[in-house]
Order: sequence, then C-alpha cells, then structure tokens
Amino acid sequence: MDEHDPPALRDVAIGIAAHGFRTESDSMGEIEVPADRYWGAQTQRSLKHFSIGAERMPLEVYRAYALVKKAAAEVNHAAGKLPAWKAAAIVRAADEALDGAFDAHFPLFVYQTGSGTQSNMNINEVLANRASQLLGGVIGSKAPVHPNDDVNLAQSSNDTFPTAMHVATLDALERQLLPNAAALTAAIEAKAVEWMDVPKTGRTHLQDAVPLTVGQEWSGYGHQLRDALARIEAAKAGLYELAAGGTAVGTGIAAWPGFSMAIAARIAALTGQPFVTAPNKFAAQGSLDAMVAVMAAIRGLAVALMKIANDMRWLASGPRCGIGELVLPENEPGSSIMPGKVNPTQCEAMVMVCIQVIGDDNAVAFAGSQGNFELNAMRPIIINNVLRSCRNLADACGTLNRFSVAGTVLNRERIDEQIGRSLMLVTALSPVIGYDRAAMVAHRAEAEGLSLRDAAMAYAGMDGAEFDRIVDPAKLVGRGLAGA
Amino acid sequence: MDEHDPPALRDVAIGIAAHGFRTESDSMGEIEVPADRYWGAQTQRSLKHFSIGAERMPLEVYRAYALVKKAAAEVNHAAGKLPAWKAAAIVRAADEALDGAFDAHFPLFVYQTGSGTQSNMNINEVLANRASQLLGGVIGSKAPVHPNDDVNLAQSSNDTFPTAMHVATLDALERQLLPNAAALTAAIEAKAVEWMDVPKTGRTHLQDAVPLTVGQEWSGYGHQLRDALARIEAAKAGLYELAAGGTAVGTGIAAWPGFSMAIAARIAALTGQPFVTAPNKFAAQGSLDAMVAVMAAIRGLAVALMKIANDMRWLASGPRCGIGELVLPENEPGSSIMPGKVNPTQCEAMVMVCIQVIGDDNAVAFAGSQGNFELNAMRPIIINNVLRSCRNLADACGTLNRFSVAGTVLNRERIDEQIGRSLMLVTALSPVIGYDRAAMVAHRAEAEGLSLRDAAMAYAGMDGAEFDRIVDPAKLVGRGLAGA
Amino acid sequence: MDEHDPPALRDVAIGIAAHGFRTESDSMGEIEVPADRYWGAQTQRSLKHFSIGAERMPLEVYRAYALVKKAAAEVNHAAGKLPAWKAAAIVRAADEALDGAFDAHFPLFVYQTGSGTQSNMNINEVLANRASQLLGGVIGSKAPVHPNDDVNLAQSSNDTFPTAMHVATLDALERQLLPNAAALTAAIEAKAVEWMDVPKTGRTHLQDAVPLTVGQEWSGYGHQLRDALARIEAAKAGLYELAAGGTAVGTGIAAWPGFSMAIAARIAALTGQPFVTAPNKFAAQGSLDAMVAVMAAIRGLAVALMKIANDMRWLASGPRCGIGELVLPENEPGSSIMPGKVNPTQCEAMVMVCIQVIGDDNAVAFAGSQGNFELNAMRPIIINNVLRSCRNLADACGTLNRFSVAGTVLNRERIDEQIGRSLMLVTALSPVIGYDRAAMVAHRAEAEGLSLRDAAMAYAGMDGAEFDRIVDPAKLVGRGLAGA
Amino acid sequence: MDEHDPPALRDVAIGIAAHGFRTESDSMGEIEVPADRYWGAQTQRSLKHFSIGAERMPLEVYRAYALVKKAAAEVNHAAGKLPAWKAAAIVRAADEALDGAFDAHFPLFVYQTGSGTQSNMNINEVLANRASQLLGGVIGSKAPVHPNDDVNLAQSSNDTFPTAMHVATLDALERQLLPNAAALTAAIEAKAVEWMDVPKTGRTHLQDAVPLTVGQEWSGYGHQLRDALARIEAAKAGLYELAAGGTAVGTGIAAWPGFSMAIAARIAALTGQPFVTAPNKFAAQGSLDAMVAVMAAIRGLAVALMKIANDMRWLASGPRCGIGELVLPENEPGSSIMPGKVNPTQCEAMVMVCIQVIGDDNAVAFAGSQGNFELNAMRPIIINNVLRSCRNLADACGTLNRFSVAGTVLNRERIDEQIGRSLMLVTALSPVIGYDRAAMVAHRAEAEGLSLRDAAMAYAGMDGAEFDRIVDPAKLVGRGLAGA
Repeated sequence: MDEHDPPALRDVAIGIAAHGFRTESDSMGEIEVPADRYWGAQTQRSLKHFSIGAERMPLEVYRAYALVKKAAAEVNHAAGKLPAWKAAAIVRAADEALDGAFDAHFPLFVYQTGSGTQSNMNINEVLANRASQLLGGVIGSKAPVHPNDDVNLAQSSNDTFPTAMHVATLDALERQLLPNAAALTAAIEAKAVEWMDVPKTGRTHLQDAVPLTVGQEWSGYGHQLRDALARIEAAKAGLYELAAGGTAVGTGIAAWPGFSMAIAARIAALTGQPFVTAPNKFAAQGSLDAMVAVMAAIRGLAVALMKIANDMRWLASGPRCGIGELVLPENEPGSSIMPGKVNPTQCEAMVMVCIQVIGDDNAVAFAGSQGNFELNAMRPIIINNVLRSCRNLADACGTLNRFSVAGTVLNRERIDEQIGRSLMLVTALSPVIGYDRAAMVAHRAEAEGLSLRDAAMAYAGMDGAEFDRIVDPAKLVGRGLAGA
Repeated sequence: MDEHDPPALRDVAIGIAAHGFRTESDSMGEIEVPADRYWGAQTQRSLKHFSIGAERMPLEVYRAYALVKKAAAEVNHAAGKLPAWKAAAIVRAADEALDGAFDAHFPLFVYQTGSGTQSNMNINEVLANRASQLLGGVIGSKAPVHPNDDVNLAQSSNDTFPTAMHVATLDALERQLLPNAAALTAAIEAKAVEWMDVPKTGRTHLQDAVPLTVGQEWSGYGHQLRDALARIEAAKAGLYELAAGGTAVGTGIAAWPGFSMAIAARIAALTGQPFVTAPNKFAAQGSLDAMVAVMAAIRGLAVALMKIANDMRWLASGPRCGIGELVLPENEPGSSIMPGKVNPTQCEAMVMVCIQVIGDDNAVAFAGSQGNFELNAMRPIIINNVLRSCRNLADACGTLNRFSVAGTVLNRERIDEQIGRSLMLVTALSPVIGYDRAAMVAHRAEAEGLSLRDAAMAYAGMDGAEFDRIVDPAKLVGRGLAGA
Repeated sequence: MDEHDPPALRDVAIGIAAHGFRTESDSMGEIEVPADRYWGAQTQRSLKHFSIGAERMPLEVYRAYALVKKAAAEVNHAAGKLPAWKAAAIVRAADEALDGAFDAHFPLFVYQTGSGTQSNMNINEVLANRASQLLGGVIGSKAPVHPNDDVNLAQSSNDTFPTAMHVATLDALERQLLPNAAALTAAIEAKAVEWMDVPKTGRTHLQDAVPLTVGQEWSGYGHQLRDALARIEAAKAGLYELAAGGTAVGTGIAAWPGFSMAIAARIAALTGQPFVTAPNKFAAQGSLDAMVAVMAAIRGLAVALMKIANDMRWLASGPRCGIGELVLPENEPGSSIMPGKVNPTQCEAMVMVCIQVIGDDNAVAFAGSQGNFELNAMRPIIINNVLRSCRNLADACGTLNRFSVAGTVLNRERIDEQIGRSLMLVTALSPVIGYDRAAMVAHRAEAEGLSLRDAAMAYAGMDGAEFDRIVDPAKLVGRGLAGA
Repeated sequence: MDEHDPPALRDVAIGIAAHGFRTESDSMGEIEVPADRYWGAQTQRSLKHFSIGAERMPLEVYRAYALVKKAAAEVNHAAGKLPAWKAAAIVRAADEALDGAFDAHFPLFVYQTGSGTQSNMNINEVLANRASQLLGGVIGSKAPVHPNDDVNLAQSSNDTFPTAMHVATLDALERQLLPNAAALTAAIEAKAVEWMDVPKTGRTHLQDAVPLTVGQEWSGYGHQLRDALARIEAAKAGLYELAAGGTAVGTGIAAWPGFSMAIAARIAALTGQPFVTAPNKFAAQGSLDAMVAVMAAIRGLAVALMKIANDMRWLASGPRCGIGELVLPENEPGSSIMPGKVNPTQCEAMVMVCIQVIGDDNAVAFAGSQGNFELNAMRPIIINNVLRSCRNLADACGTLNRFSVAGTVLNRERIDEQIGRSLMLVTALSPVIGYDRAAMVAHRAEAEGLSLRDAAMAYAGMDGAEFDRIVDPAKLVGRGLAGA
C-alpha cells in the first residue's frame, strides 16, 4: 500500500457472503475457518483445542476489548505509528464490535490459555478482517490490516487482557451490580422508615430478647448494604489502573514511549471513568490483586445479603407454625403436592446466589495466588467468576426487590401478640431490682407459666403500677439507630 | 373421561402450531404463556420471577427427570393408580423428552426455588400438555392429563428432584467424567511404561534430589488418578439411593404403599444402574449429603490433576531457560507479541478447571450444610455445580490427553545433562562414609564448583573406581514403583 | 564401638541434669542448644528460623513418629542393618516417647519446612540423644547412636513424615472422632425411638408442611450421621497405605530391599491396624491425596452436623416467640444483661466447629493441589488441619451429646397446638378433590382465617365426618422411615 | 454500702491465697470454682460445658476487653451512674488485666456461646472479684462490686464483645501485621533498587519471554505489597466503628443516653485510635461485616505473598537442575537423607501460611453470613481466625525477611547465560520485519538449534550489525516501572 494513496474506507455492510470454509494462516501454518466468520487462524485453533465445558468467554470482555483496541488505534495514529486510513478502519470495526455486531464471532471458551491471548487474537482477527473488508481487502489475507502488526500494535495480550478485564468489570459494577443493589437498599430503607414505630420482639441466639422496632431491624439491613456498597466503591480504585503499555512482560517492549499514558487517557475519555496507567506494570501483569480485591468486596455484599435474605424467610416462616411476623408476596404455587403452599423462594434464590458468590470468590483468591514471574495465567476464570458474580447478584437484588421486598407486609397481630409474651422484658427491671433478682423473676415466670408482671409482683415485691411504668415495650426500644 | 372409553393415543407430531399467547392457570390464577411452548402457568411464573444470571437449570436434569416421570407413570399404572391410556401418553411424552425433543421447553434458571419445584412443575406441565395433545386434549386445559394429579401422581418435588439429581449425576459420571479421566489415566500410564528406563534428576522442594526414572514419575501420576477414580466410584454408592416415595416430607403422604421400592426398581431397570430406594427418606430429603460426598470425590480428582498439570508445565518450562525436560506439542501460537512463543496452554486450562472445581466444591459443601427441617432448599446450585464440574473436568481431561499428553516427548539431551550435574547423587555415599562426611563433600563440591567425584576423592578419600561403582544413576533409581 | 563388645543398655532415668547450653552440630556447623533438652542442632535451627504463629506441630505426630522409628529400628535390626544393642536403645527411647516422656522436647512450629524434615530430625535427635544416654554416650556427641545414620536408617522425611501422618490421623479417627460421633449418633437414634409416635408439623422451605413424627425427623439426623461415619470409614482405606520405604524420592534409595514391606508389617503389628506398604511410592510422596480424601470425609460429617445443630436450635427457638418444639437443657445463663435468658449454646459451638472444619478442608484441598515433582511440601498444614478438625469435631460431638441432646425434651403442648393449625393437612384432600380444588380450599382458609375443616366444608362441599376420616395427623405420618 | 462512707481502695497484692474450691453462684445456682482463681460461676460453667478442642479465646481479646471495661467504668462514673470508689476499683483491676496479670484467669475455649457472653462474663467476674478484693470484700460474694450490675453496667455481651473484637483486631494489625509486612516490603524494595540494572530473561506461562531486569521484577513484588497494605489500611475504617452502647439488641436498653458516644470517645482516648460509635447498632451487632472485610484485606496480602514466595523458590530452584537465578540463604540442612541439600523452607512456610489464611478467610466469610436477627452468633471463630491470620502472616513476613530475603543474592553467571539463550529476543525484530517473519525466524532457530542471530541472517536477510543494534537485552528492558 502506498501511504500517499491509501485505500478508501468503504461502506460495506457487516457480514461475509460466503459459504464453506476459507483458509487462514498463522505462524503454525494454514487452517480452515468457516467462510462466513470474521475470526482467523488462531481463534480457530483455540476452538479446536479448548472445547471445555459450556461457558464461553463473556461477551462483556470482548466489548471492553473493542474499546481498548479502538483507543490503541487512535493513540497509535496520533503518535504517527499507524496511518490514518488504517486507524479509521480499525476504529470503525471496533465501534461495530462495541455495538455487538460481532458477538457471534467471539466463540471461544473460558478455559483456554491463561493469559487470554486467544481471546485477544480473536478480537484482533475479527477487527483486522473487518477493517480489511472495509478497505477493500480480502478477508483472511491480513491485508491491508494485519491482526498483529496493526490491530495489536504496541500491545500484548499480557497487558491488554487485564486492561479489558478492568474495563469490563467496572462496567458490570456500574451498570449491573451497583444500581440494582442500591435500588434494593433504598427499598429496604423505605421499609425501615415505614415500620420505624412498630415494636416487636428482638431475638438473639434465635431466642426471645428485648424489643426493638421492625424499622430498627430493617435499618440494620439497609446499613449493612450501604457499608457493603461503600466497600465495593472503594475497591473500584484498583480497577482504574490499567496495564496497557506494559506489553509482553511489563517493560513496554515494542510499544512507543508515552503509549501507556496515552492509551489510559484515551480509555478514560471514551468511558468517562478515571482510568490511569498502572504505576508498576510488573505488578499489574504478574498479579490480579485488584480483581481479587474487587471480588472480595462483592463477596462482602453477598455476606450481608445472605443474612438479610435469611432473616426475611425466617421472619416469614409459618404462616401458622413459625415466627410469622412478615408476610411475603405470593408469587407462585410453592409445592407440586401440597396445595396452597407458598414459599420464600426469592430469599432462597438470593441465598443460593450468595453461596455461589462465596464459592466463586474462593476460586478467584486461589487463582490470584497462582501467578508466576511476569504473568498470572489464571485470568479467564478470574474474569468469568467476577462477571458472573456481578450479574447473579445484580439480578437477584432486582428480583428480591421487585418480587419480595416491595410487596412484604407485616402481620401486626402476630407481632403484637409475641411482644407481649416475651419474658425478656424483665431486662427493664434489672436496673431497679438487680440482675440476680430479675433473673429469678424470669425463671419463676417460665417455670410457673406466669406473666412477667405477675411474677414480678409475687417474687420481687413490685407493685403493678411500677411494673407497668417500667416495662413498656414502646419505651424499651430506645431512641433511634445509634443505641444509647 | 370415561374409563371404559378412553381416548386413543394419536400420532401427533411434536410441536404446537400456534402464535401469540395462550392462557394457562394454576392456583394463583391465570397467566399468559407463549402459545407455541408446552410449558404452563407455573413455569411461566418462574420465568418472570427468577430471571437471575445466565445459567439455566441443566438439561441433564430434565432428561433425568423425564426418566423419573416415565418410571412413575409405569408403576402408578401397574399399581392401578393411573389408567393405562394416561400412563401410555405420559410415557410417550417422557420418551420424547428423553430424546431431547422438549429441550427448548425447559427455560428455567438455576436460581429459582431451592426445592427445584419449578423445574418439576416445568416437566410436569410439558409432559401433561404433550400427553393431553397426544390424547386429543386441548393444550393448556390440563385435561385429560393433569400436571399435578397425573404426571406428578404420588410424587413431590421434594422427593423427585433429588431423585433426578442422582440419576443425572450418575449419568454425567458414567458418560462424561469417568471415561474421559480413565482415558487420560491410560495415556499417562502408557507414557510411564514408555519412559520407565530413562533416569532423570528427582526434585524435592523444587531442589535437585536423587534420581528416579521419567517412567517412575509418570507412574505416580497414573497412580494418583487411579486412586482418585476409585474414590469417585466409591462415592457413587450414595447416588444409588433414591428419595422417590418420600413425597412432601419423607413420610410418603399421597403415595401408595410400595411406591418407593417400585419406582426405584423401575428406574434401575430403565437405566441398568443398581438404584434402590433410600432407607431413610428424612435424611434423603432433608440433606444432600450424598451429593456433597460425590462432589468431594470429584474435587479429589481435581486436586490430583492440578499437581500433574503443574508438573507437566514446569517440566516443560523453557524451552531454554527453564527445566526443559519435556517438550509439549505446539498447538497454537502463544503470544500476540512474541513471535514463535509456545505455551503450556492445555495445562493452564486444566489448572483453571481444577481451581474452579475446588471453588465449586466449596459452594456445594456450604449449600449442603444449609438444610432446614424436612428440606435442603439449596438443590439447584448443588446440581449445577456438580454437573458443571463433571463436564469441565471431563472435557479438560479429554483435551489435555489429546492435545498435550499424547504428543509429549522427552528432551533426552537435557535430561541426561541435568542428571549428571546434580550433587544429590552424594546420597549414595552416605551409607558408606556417613551422613556428616557426605554432607561435607556436597558442600565442598558446591562451594568450589567441583564435580561430586572430584570432591569425594579430595575430601572423603575415596578412589575414583569406588565412586563410580557406587554413584551410578541407573542403579540409584531402585527397582520399580514400590520403593525399597 | 566394637560390635563384639557393645555397650550395655543402662537404666538411666529420663532427663538431662544440666544447665545452660551445650554445643550440638550438623552439616551447617555448631549451634548452642539448651543443655537440659534432648533435641539437637537441627531442631534448634528450626526453632530459631520458624517462630511463626502459636501453633506447634501436634504431639500426636511425634507419638506416631516414635512408633515409626521403633518399627524401623526393629526391622533394620532383623535385616542385619542395625546391631541389636543400638536397636534396643532406640526402641527403648521410642517407647518412652510413645509414653509422652519427651513431649517437652518437641518444640517445633507447624510452619516449618514443608516436608516435615525438621520434625523428623527433632525426633531423630531426641531418640539418638536418649539412646546414646542409655548406652553411656555423651549427649550431643551423636555417639554411639547417630540421628541420621542410625535412627533415620533407611529412611527419609519424605517417606516417614507422611507415614507418621497416616498413623496419627488413623489414631485420631479411631480414638477421638469416630467414637464420639458414634456416641452422639446413638443418642440421637435413641431419641428417635423415644419420640417415634409423636406427630408434629413438618416444615419445608421453613414453611408449614404436612406432618411427620418427631422420631421420624430425628431418625433422619441419625441416618445422616451413620452415612457420614460410613464415609469416614471408607476413607480410612487410603491411610492404610504407607510411604515408608520410598525414602528420598520414592525409589527407596539408601534403604534395603524389602524394607517397605517389612516396616509396614511391623507398624501393622504394633498398632493392630491393617497397614500395608503403598504400591506406588511416587504417588505416596508426591501427593497427599489420601489425606485430602479423609479430610473431605470429615467435612461430610461436619456438613451433616451443621444441619442437625441448626435444626435443634431452631426447633428450640423461643421459648415463647419462636418454634418452641424442643426444650434444650439450661446449662448456663445466656446473657450478661437479659436476666433468665437461656441460649442454644452447644448448638452454636457445634455450628462454629463445622464452619471451621469446612474452612480447614478448603485449606487442605488447596495444599493438596500444590505438590511439585517428587514431593508435596505442604504437609505440616495438612496434618495440622486434619488433626485439629478431628479433635474439634470429636469434642463438639461429646459436649453436644452430654450437654444438649441427652437432656432435650419435647414441648408437647406446643407441638400439638401447631400440628392442629397447619393448613398443609389439605394435602390429604388432594387425592380426593384434586390438587386445584385443594389449593383453593387452603387459600380460602388462610384468607378468611378459617380452620381447614370449615373451609373444606364451605368451599369443597365435604362433610365433616369425611374430612375427619381423611385428615387425621396420626395417619398422615406414614408407616416408618422409608416413605411410601 | 453507704455512699457517704465508701470502702477504701486497698493495696492488695494480686493473687488469692486459698486452696481447694470456693462456692460461686449465678442465676443457675451454686457451683464450685478453684479457690485461687478470680473467675466466677459462669466462667466455671463454660469451662465444664465447652471443653472443645485445644484453642482458647485469644488473650488479645481479654486485653481489649479490659480496656473496654475500664472505659465503661470511667464514663459510667462520669455520668453519675457508678460511684467513684467502685469505678476506681474496676479501673485498677482493668489496668492490671491490661498488664496481663490475669492471663491465667481467662481459661475459656474458642468454641463457646456464639455471642462471646461467656468471655464477657469471665472478664466481668475476674474484674468484679479483684475489685471487691481491692475494696475489702469477699471473693465470690459479688460485693461490693457485682459482675453484672457494676462491671457490666450499661453493657451487654452483644455490644461489647464486637467492640473488643475491633479493638483487638486493630491492635493486632498495628502492632503485628502492618509493621512486619511493611518491613518485608521495604526489604524487597531495597533489593529492587539494588538489582535494578541487572537484565534477566522474563518468563510468561513459565516459558522464556523478553527480558526485564531483576530489579523490575522485584519492584513488582514491592508494588503488590504496597497495594495490599493500602487495602488493609482502608479496611481499618470499619473497625473504628464500635457497637458499645447498643446493649442487648441495638436499642441501648439499660444504658443511659449518651453512653455510646461517651464510651467510644473514651476508648479512642485510651488507645489513640480514631474510634467512634457505630452509626447503626443493629448492623453493628447483627453482622460482623467489618471483620469480614478486614479478613478479606488480610487475605489480599496473603494472595500477593504467595505469588512472591512461589517466585522466590522457583527462581532459586536447582541449584544445578532448575532456574537457579537466585541463591537463598542456607539456614539449615534440608534433608535427613540427602546430605548437603538446602531447601527454600522460608518460602514454603510462607506459602503454607498463605494457604491457611485463605482457608481461614473462607470460614470467616461463611460465619459472617450466618447471623440471625439481632445477633451474629459466630463471633468466636471470626475473631480467632482473624487474630491467628494476623499473627501467622506477621511472623512469616518477619522470618521470610530476616532469614531469606535479606540474605538472597543473585547467581549472575546463570542469569547472564540464560538471557543470551532466550529466543524471545526475536520480539525486538517484530516491528522491523513483521510478526509473521519474526515468528518464522524463531521457529527455525529452535528447530535447527541456531542462535537467533544466525537464524535472522539466514531466514530474514538481516545483516549482523543491524541485528546487534536492535537485539540488545540492555535496551529491551525499557525505561523504568511504568512500561512504555
């Protein structure tokens, strides 16, 4: 190609009108690929050698990767390393990829090379073939746009795959997990406000304890979630640091001086996120510590949600032979054999999601520890687990919110009945008659089936009026959320 | 319907020629379902309420469930509980399901009710609609075949879902994991035989040690795998015990006396596997301990495979700046930036699969511990993790075998060069000159850069011939696999 | 020493009457050790370099190791490799170690060399010094009994440490875990028998379900435990295979032909357990797969116990505002602030033990996967986790049994009251009026606060007598443990 | 006692001069306790009922608890709730406890009530008995200072135990883990500076890659650690929020208005740490999310350290048949059978610690998810795992630093030899001759055993001078740490 007479960018519709197979080649030689696919030789080899399990590399990774490739083409061009016409074609192809036009052309499995090289070559090949097509070249010819020399210019999988991981993870947090979890939190907080003045029996060790209000209890759920979300926000900091520019081993070989900062700035501009270049590329490529930290923060949310979902289903247990304080919405029949049964299925689904997140986090930490030298070659399962956990938790927050929290109501009759029964109101007597005598009163009430009032009068010499003044559930619930 | 004039089983092609939606109903009321689907109201409600994540309940579960439904219809008929014409229609529909004809009609997500009830209702609805169709009934009318009263007759999700889990898991072990792992084992054992007489440097703590043969080393791999497979075989015993017949809580309510044994016998006959009825249905439905044990055995295989895959990639490290004893097949280019690089990608994929299996097992054990009273409501993630692990490990055994072990060859030059260098041959002198003097000889050799022979002559007063007689690598590798 | 005039074994009391320090030496040179300790230079170096955490190598490992050293001395003597007088002194010292006489002389930490070599040298040094003392030698002189050349004769840490691990683990199972867990199981089974005819409300998804008897419920607990114990029994098989005789890398270098079988037979004779030599020493030393499998089986018990302990505390929840079916013994005051509170503390302790066992198992599996070449150098944490789990679970079974299960009684009043309330008795109507009408009856009863009987009469046109005949809790609990 | 004539604080030496047993009592009745112990009835009951395993509640918890009790006495007095003479006696006793004077009086096991109530009562009883002794009272009489009414005034275990957990954890981080890990980091960074200009072969996928410098590689280790430390620092924020003042269920029952803020301020003053009262006590007592987050951050450090320790031992592998770039200090003989063997034992110990931390973190996350209602009753194992992990990692950082990193030197000869051999220097040719031709050159060099230079001349038509100009390892290592 003559730089002075570059090929024009044509308006070719997406798609390859061909049947059967065409021959692509790489340094291993030639190989047949389906003629209507944009991928090339290395993708095809990976498909053949890594047909493992059912899970494919998430499309979110390719979308993020397309953005990285676009940014690379732009800064390579700006630095004079890539002619304008090539850059334009690559950018156009990348934009199409960002729109999902090539989703069917990213067929690779999660279990592949641990560096993600095969997925990098997949997108290199797709963009190169598409860009060449746009420039009038022959699909499969690697001309005029070459997957390695042009699309991958100044890059390695070793630096760009973790860059794409960070971009994809941040996007999943921003668009899936954080908004859905925040909406659930807001719904729970609204319930807390709504129920702030309804006293109920507290429970510790599953045993009756002193009262609190339903709203106080739910404020605790809301607060747990706010804390968990804040921890995820904090963990995002690590994601902002991008490895791009470290190339093969962190030294930046084959990239031009300034590439690291330029591409990070470009990615920041394209995403509106404060991405920067990682200050130490050897850490950024030899480890996946930022991903491990993000996963741990996601797990923290799961730990909180599991407690909340469990509380909800226990508080709704019954309806007649359990605690029965909450009435969850009836979404579907609960049993194929017991007519009329309704179960806390949204809570169960959430609990299962949380357990899976904890297991997936375990795999991520293990994988994170298994780096060697200049590369952690466990990237595919780390990104797969992180994105899956984001998605599962996000969706479960959404359905729990819509199909359970939103429609949950109180069984006031039950709540009132129970608070009157609890012997632990005796705690209010303790400052007056001392712990030891108060304990004696409670034991006598339980042993003799007395009300606490009667026992206090009989065994602690209290008069009824004094008892009623002190033991008033509405007064015993304190004055807010921060304790005494 | 008149029992004396039952509808005839017609030969209706699979499929519903309709567009738009039809109305189905359940105890919650009416709901619109896609008109061309066989599922009914409860499936539709689940789809709406549990759109969580990307993973669907594995089709293997439905295939196994179809077999359970077939067996139930047969024994219900044999016991006089279900008329012949209904049983025949259900069996025909179940056979079609077993052939995969309704795979597109099982759309539910993994994260749903923890009992699996929604998937049970999914297959009940599909089989009922199909059976009704075969009998001339109207799709969606629940007549003449009713999903609960007929297809689910004498059953609950609580007993049949774990039954289907056992059937599906056993099938996955028998058809996927065990044969693939056994083939890999055989391939490794063949390598062990091939290389049995090639002495090499042993390594302990990653440091040079006394010699063994390459074949001895690989015999260890083979033996680990044989042991792991034997442990999986042993764990199958728990799967043979089926919960079917316990119905809702283990008591067998709504099932007829003898149903438990009859259906287990029928499933055994249909599968050729030694299924029996679980002797205690309360344990069988309140726990998933047999599944936890199977998963632990699968993890045992992963633990062994991880060691083997790691050994392979380290022994192949280099090619020039590592250990370099093994040469793995070159399947694909290894780097987008470093031309000519070849990586141990099959080993990496296997290591990632093993880590994921260990994480998934963690989730299974957690879930297994979370049963309450008459039900463990964590079934969907347990079956999903177990089947995924089976599939992933099976496939990874297959590709590691075909694309790595099969083509692995020795770098004899490197192996020979290294064995001559190791100072640990000094161990052979220990019985002759004592541990302390032998240690001194080794230290002097290392410090002064001497060969072990020269150091032994200089510092231990040995003569060369005696040294050569004692320190002969070929003799130091012992006489087989069982040690001294 | 002249073999024809060997030193006599003297009757020297255990102990070294010395103060300050003496000088011991090894291949690294001289080092000061406390003069009243039997250990030598290598133990001292380990103490200095590995002061990590608070946990010491469990004494059970040294007891088992003493037995291995005794067996080695005996078979080495029988094979003519060790003179009778040396063997006798080593055996005498080992017997003293088995009695615990040297427990204060095994000071090393868990976190040390991954092969356990330092603990092997610890016992070699202690036994050599003691044997030398018994023979009139000078402590620290390594004469007449040398720690490496005599006590460690024909052995390496690489084969004997896993041998001691197997012996110690089997002992912990046999003496701690299995009897305690079996006793708890028997106690639970006795409760099941005692309560076999008490009907109660079943619960699935935490929601009211059809009835079963308390005894049926507890029979499920007993059955889970029997299954778990059987799985531990099965896992013992792997422990019977001993690595001894593989020496440094599995080839048996420096051991005499026949040593493997001889020492295994001797250990079998000394312990009364069916120990045999491992058929493949490369697997036995390069992996710890048998330990991983045992730990998984122990975890299986924990998974079952967690469900049982959780059920117990939930069934005892209240006493007035929870389920309240069980009354657990009141062992201690439950609250520092709420007088008279009693909590299910034994269950909580058991749940915490179970969670820790699951975490420890996770560490064991991870460590088990991290072997390299001829050695898995993660042995200390594997044996530490396994023995700790055995001990914790064994003790928790003991206290749960004595302080909770034994004294648990039923709150019959509560149980009877609840069974009458449950709407799920409607299930019994299903075979009569069909699932859909039965569901409608249940929904109406719940919505209108009707008893099931009244609703059935009002909405399903049943007469009262028919209802009473069909819906009899005592009949609905089935006929035993195996379902219908 | 007459407030106007309070008993004087006497100068009684610590200790109880008594033998045998004395009788103490609590709401369960009387019980015998050892006469020379300060603990009382509830401690004794716990000792009897919870003899589980070998681990005791860490003394760090009691030290922190003593500080909490001191602060409570001070603010209770300041608020007029506790007379000066009682407060002074409690403070004096608490100060003695802080000095470790009562360590032998805190005998309880980790596995006890899940709220930590028994440990709270242990310190209440010890301080009450000691304070009473100081005031001339009779040990065991609960007078004049009562364990519940005075020492526990305005407190519950439910709020003070997590308060003590936070104080103890922060102290362990500040005094153990952070300084030791920071010192290791500094040592690694110093090595990075020292070796910054030594080029070496990079390795990705364990395979030879393009060069970097030894210092660059170690800078990555240092950077990983700095990041991990920063994440631990960030996680400390959650620990600053204290539950004290929530009392039994978070409402602050039995505490006076303002107590929460007062005690947090007092603890802040006593410790010099920015403690504040938790804004939501229901979250603070119903969850342990802040502890789960801290543990995850500690695990992050373990994940990084595992990679580093593994790199160190692999880079030191050999000495003759491995990579051999590093020479680690020889601290002790490595083998009982192979004379002169030296192993990377500090790295192994660190790897084992890291695996254990990952397992312990798994238990912590599980336990963290298991709260119910107003209490997470899994506190003892959470604090035990967190403190153990802090200690183990801190100590392992210390010994790895002193006994391995500090003395590590380079094998320059080996490093130089390897860098010259690597074919991956071909990467430098890629921008000149294109990826495909460069790959061909590398393949030909490997296949024909050529040097890269010769192959480039033969197959790519390069002249030698051009090759030498481009392929200069010293130039290929980039310009620092941030890549291109």
